[in-house]
Amino acid sequence: MTPSATPAYRRLSVEERRSQLLDAALTLFAHRAPEDVSLDDVAEAAGVSRPLVYRYFPGGKQQLYEAALRSAAEELQQCFDEPLEGPLLRRLSHAVDRYLAFVDEHDTGFSALLQGGSVVETSRTTATVDGVRRAAAEHIYRHLGVADPGPRLRMTVRTWITAVEAASLIWLDEDKQPPVEELRAWLVEQFTAVLTVTAGRDPQTAALVGTLTGDGGD
Amino acid sequence: MTPSATPAYRRLSVEERRSQLLDAALTLFAHRAPEDVSLDDVAEAAGVSRPLVYRYFPGGKQQLYEAALRSAAEELQQCFDEPLEGPLLRRLSHAVDRYLAFVDEHDTGFSALLQGGSVVETSRTTATVDGVRRAAAEHIYRHLGVADPGPRLRMTVRTWITAVEAASLIWLDEDKQPPVEELRAWLVEQFTAVLTVTAGRDPQTAALVGTLTGDGGD
Repeated sequence: MTPSATPAYRRLSVEERRSQLLDAALTLFAHRAPEDVSLDDVAEAAGVSRPLVYRYFPGGKQQLYEAALRSAAEELQQCFDEPLEGPLLRRLSHAVDRYLAFVDEHDTGFSALLQGGSVVETSRTTATVDGVRRAAAEHIYRHLGVADPGPRLRMTVRTWITAVEAASLIWLDEDKQPPVEELRAWLVEQFTAVLTVTAGRDPQTAALVGTLTGDGGD
Repeated sequence: MTPSATPAYRRLSVEERRSQLLDAALTLFAHRAPEDVSLDDVAEAAGVSRPLVYRYFPGGKQQLYEAALRSAAEELQQCFDEPLEGPLLRRLSHAVDRYLAFVDEHDTGFSALLQGGSVVETSRTTATVDGVRRAAAEHIYRHLGVADPGPRLRMTVRTWITAVEAASLIWLDEDKQPPVEELRAWLVEQFTAVLTVTAGRDPQTAALVGTLTGDGGD
């Protein structure tokens, strides 16, 4: 028997314990609205005592929720990490694939997070979500090889990111139909389509559209 | 001197008074976050006493905010009213025009409303905003002459509506650039573009795309 078979009784480092509690909280928040999760639930899910949860998160549920949210946001941002090589649309497709896998795994928690309907929602949690959106846009500019995106390109990229979020929420709402591969292909095609519309009135975007299927960016 | 030159002293009917107070509240909420508007401000803007505001809205600011929001939502929904005749894209263009005029007029209040960052936000205010989104989608299906939209068409229309909202917020954020006429034309072209992407994998949507420039719908 290895120690990892009985995780609750293993002697964990502070970082390991913290991360174990965050994982347990994330799983709970992912399947229930934050207001329906208690610290007792988190303690039980992690196989530890309630005082131990408080020792790590003295701010109670609010602090735990925000920390779990930040940890989810970091995980979500990792979806965007993609090497700067190969055809641009293939890179986008990989990133959207990982993003949709995240949405699929965290379903309820993802909806609650983005819809902000939670009673424990604060300006800090909103800022966390906005940070993810900003990071997504920055990744796209970097892959497109654009150091200084103009207002028309920025508006196009930002509305596409919002459309991806909306489509993910609708997809969860519609019992994950159509199949995830179709949703991914549709979102990537939408990216080309909306960029092409903008290209008609913006030279910066027009210069990019031709590079989408080739090895663009830097 | 006509009585209407001194509105505060006119004898108004209950409905007129109520509507006068809502107008004053809407104007205030449109330019400040709800948490920065007091009942005294509303009374002053309407040229009436604070007790009179309370007589009409005994629930205080929360009730007034929700009533003002519903009234704004009704005004917003009127933007979508468009006769069922003429080329579809021209009808859409007219509706988007009126919608953007509403966004332009209510700027700050519109952002606060859609971003839900307000302290007086509740599930009722969220439901009001969702009702406007649903109404927008229903109008689009009616103009397209579609009685029973399938999941792919629904997802396309709903994500486009979200994209319009996002673009409006970004437009306000960017000091109303690009010019409103360009934004309107861009949004209408986006509608065709995203529908065309969906048409590639959905016969119902494919049948519609060809009708967009002609006199479609019923």
